[in-house]
Amino acid sequence: MTKPRGFEKPAGVKDYLPGTVARLRKIETNVLECMNRWGYDEIITPTLEYYDTVGVASSTSDRKLFKLLDRNGTTMVLRSDMTAPIARVVASTLKSTPLPIRLAYHANVFRAMDEEAGRDAEFYQTGVELVGDASADADAEAVALAIACLEAAGVRKFRIALGHVGFLNGLLEEMLPGRQEDQQQLKQCLLDRDFVGYRKALVDLRLEPNVQRELEGILRLRGGQEICDQAGKLTRDRVALEAVSHLCEVWEVLKEYGVNEHVLIDLTMIGDFSYYTGMTFEGYAEALGFPVCNGGRYDNLLTQFGRPSPATGFALKTNRILELLGKEGNDATGRVLILYDAANRGQALQCAAEMRGKHGAAVETRKWPEGKATESIRPNEDGTFTWQDVTYADILEFLG
Amino acid sequence: MTKPRGFEKPAGVKDYLPGTVARLRKIETNVLECMNRWGYDEIITPTLEYYDTVGVASSTSDRKLFKLLDRNGTTMVLRSDMTAPIARVVASTLKSTPLPIRLAYHANVFRAMDEEAGRDAEFYQTGVELVGDASADADAEAVALAIACLEAAGVRKFRIALGHVGFLNGLLEEMLPGRQEDQQQLKQCLLDRDFVGYRKALVDLRLEPNVQRELEGILRLRGGQEICDQAGKLTRDRVALEAVSHLCEVWEVLKEYGVNEHVLIDLTMIGDFSYYTGMTFEGYAEALGFPVCNGGRYDNLLTQFGRPSPATGFALKTNRILELLGKEGNDATGRVLILYDAANRGQALQCAAEMRGKHGAAVETRKWPEGKATESIRPNEDGTFTWQDVTYADILEFLG
Repeated sequence: MTKPRGFEKPAGVKDYLPGTVARLRKIETNVLECMNRWGYDEIITPTLEYYDTVGVASSTSDRKLFKLLDRNGTTMVLRSDMTAPIARVVASTLKSTPLPIRLAYHANVFRAMDEEAGRDAEFYQTGVELVGDASADADAEAVALAIACLEAAGVRKFRIALGHVGFLNGLLEEMLPGRQEDQQQLKQCLLDRDFVGYRKALVDLRLEPNVQRELEGILRLRGGQEICDQAGKLTRDRVALEAVSHLCEVWEVLKEYGVNEHVLIDLTMIGDFSYYTGMTFEGYAEALGFPVCNGGRYDNLLTQFGRPSPATGFALKTNRILELLGKEGNDATGRVLILYDAANRGQALQCAAEMRGKHGAAVETRKWPEGKATESIRPNEDGTFTWQDVTYADILEFLG
Repeated sequence: MTKPRGFEKPAGVKDYLPGTVARLRKIETNVLECMNRWGYDEIITPTLEYYDTVGVASSTSDRKLFKLLDRNGTTMVLRSDMTAPIARVVASTLKSTPLPIRLAYHANVFRAMDEEAGRDAEFYQTGVELVGDASADADAEAVALAIACLEAAGVRKFRIALGHVGFLNGLLEEMLPGRQEDQQQLKQCLLDRDFVGYRKALVDLRLEPNVQRELEGILRLRGGQEICDQAGKLTRDRVALEAVSHLCEVWEVLKEYGVNEHVLIDLTMIGDFSYYTGMTFEGYAEALGFPVCNGGRYDNLLTQFGRPSPATGFALKTNRILELLGKEGNDATGRVLILYDAANRGQALQCAAEMRGKHGAAVETRKWPEGKATESIRPNEDGTFTWQDVTYADILEFLG
């Protein structure tokens, strides 16, 4: 193993330089403000958590957790999401706070690298958790707020795909009763959005023609309100029917939020099906192949922390939004540079203080050995700098 | 080793609940804005760094670094400060950017626990680095900006103690030539602010009476401009005299910044003397026994990353400021709660949207099975909540 060179950093982590930080901060501020206006208060939890508590409860697979030992030999992890830590807080420090509890966060989370190169080991999520409300209204609120947050973040064109894990769970159990392994295989294909693989798996299972036809029919269950009606006719399974009925109700509430234009019902869309227990959703931005947000209902998680409660929420994939908006907008802000020599130092520093305090300007001062008068520096559109001669008279004029 | 219980978190880390987060965010925003007005742009670096690069270069002792292995068996650390990561960036990604470079940060940093209980393993620092300017003006700018930032953070009464590692290094080498171990012992006493131990060490060294007298005299070198004059007479050592002369110049510039009232020259004050190479300073708030900020000049660090450059900077100890201000201010913000049933849902959601959008109000909506009309909830001074009846008419009146 070779020693890393001085400028190297671990695989999958990155530096954010000033222009990017300004854009990231803008997303963070606007989205958190939006969440706050919807009644969600920000919380901050530690980067380090115990493996046996938050680590195990998270939806991240074990091999993707960064692990380290504390002084007593207990295994810790770098948090891989914020949902499990917030469940811990709701069940402990906030255990006397009446439900529902609405919390928001903007946090960096960690995933040990996949074998594929280029995956981030540390990235940002901005999200909310609504704990203690099992209603379709709560699920609709999560979707409507996700839409408001994507807009606040500056994402222009996007669609939310809305699904429900109960529909597939129920339908597959009805069609392939007791055949867990086959069900799992089909669900994995849908999770991977591998529709070719899904069709092939159906053929390989050698099902009765009508069963195969129905299971193939799932792939067409994507659209508007009519999908709920179609899906309701596909099954007599109680779990599946309840899922469809719940989804219809969410859709109704979303109509009253006036955001249906952004939403598409997609019953082939299942989030992490070992984690979510009801409605799930994913947000897709135009011209981006992967989701910019995902969320759903997870009614079992809080039980693991000793305060059984229904819960729903979502997280924006903040880094992807940052990339999406990367080329948009102009974040070059003007900056005044005042150069001084020992003779006019007092005047220069006072002038800078006045420009910062009264005018909110960004002013850099610098001692200039050659005794040049004063110049001003502003970034060009391409991020480089050019020098412009500015006299004290100009600055005093600027100050009015 | 017992398994941690569900609600436990690792020693030394904490959850920040909404009221505290609001205060922390206020400090962060105000201080970063202040830094930005002085020409410092924010940068974000990864939580994970290589041990052999940033880990080794940091001023944190090895046993206080959190270490973990990447997939290739290379040792990584959780960053223990931001100065070494920023030096890495300045020497790599920004290697073509002309000096001086001004960068700011607000970041969580990590220290593996001391044996003593109660020390934070993860805490926040908000600071700047000014790379590429060796002048007294640059040092004075760091001190003056630290003062501006403490004020922006809301710290009311504070003093900056200003010192210089060169003075003690020179004087001790002059008085105890070649006696590195004895010099180290005396410096450690001063670093620990253990003046009784310092005097005892002097006695134990059995020095000549005039040497002992002079070294005892150091303890009185705390005050205003006159300290520079006194210190200059104590030594003929070149290093010590240059230090005094530099400090005098910093003092002169600080006078032109108009901030001397906050500054005290203290030649017994040495920061981490293996790290700092020139001026050092610490900020003390009234009624708090430990510094709220510290900084100084570190002209050797950048060399380790291959771009030798002088540098100066400081970090606010953000968590201590948070504690200091903990009882001040009232961050309870009003929040409207709109309860609805299925019949008036559309009207309720529209009303909430209008209040959020046009009036910037924080509005929580909730489906209320019993069909109660509308209520409003605002936090009391003690953080608890009481319910107040509010009608739709009230809200419409509020909306004007």
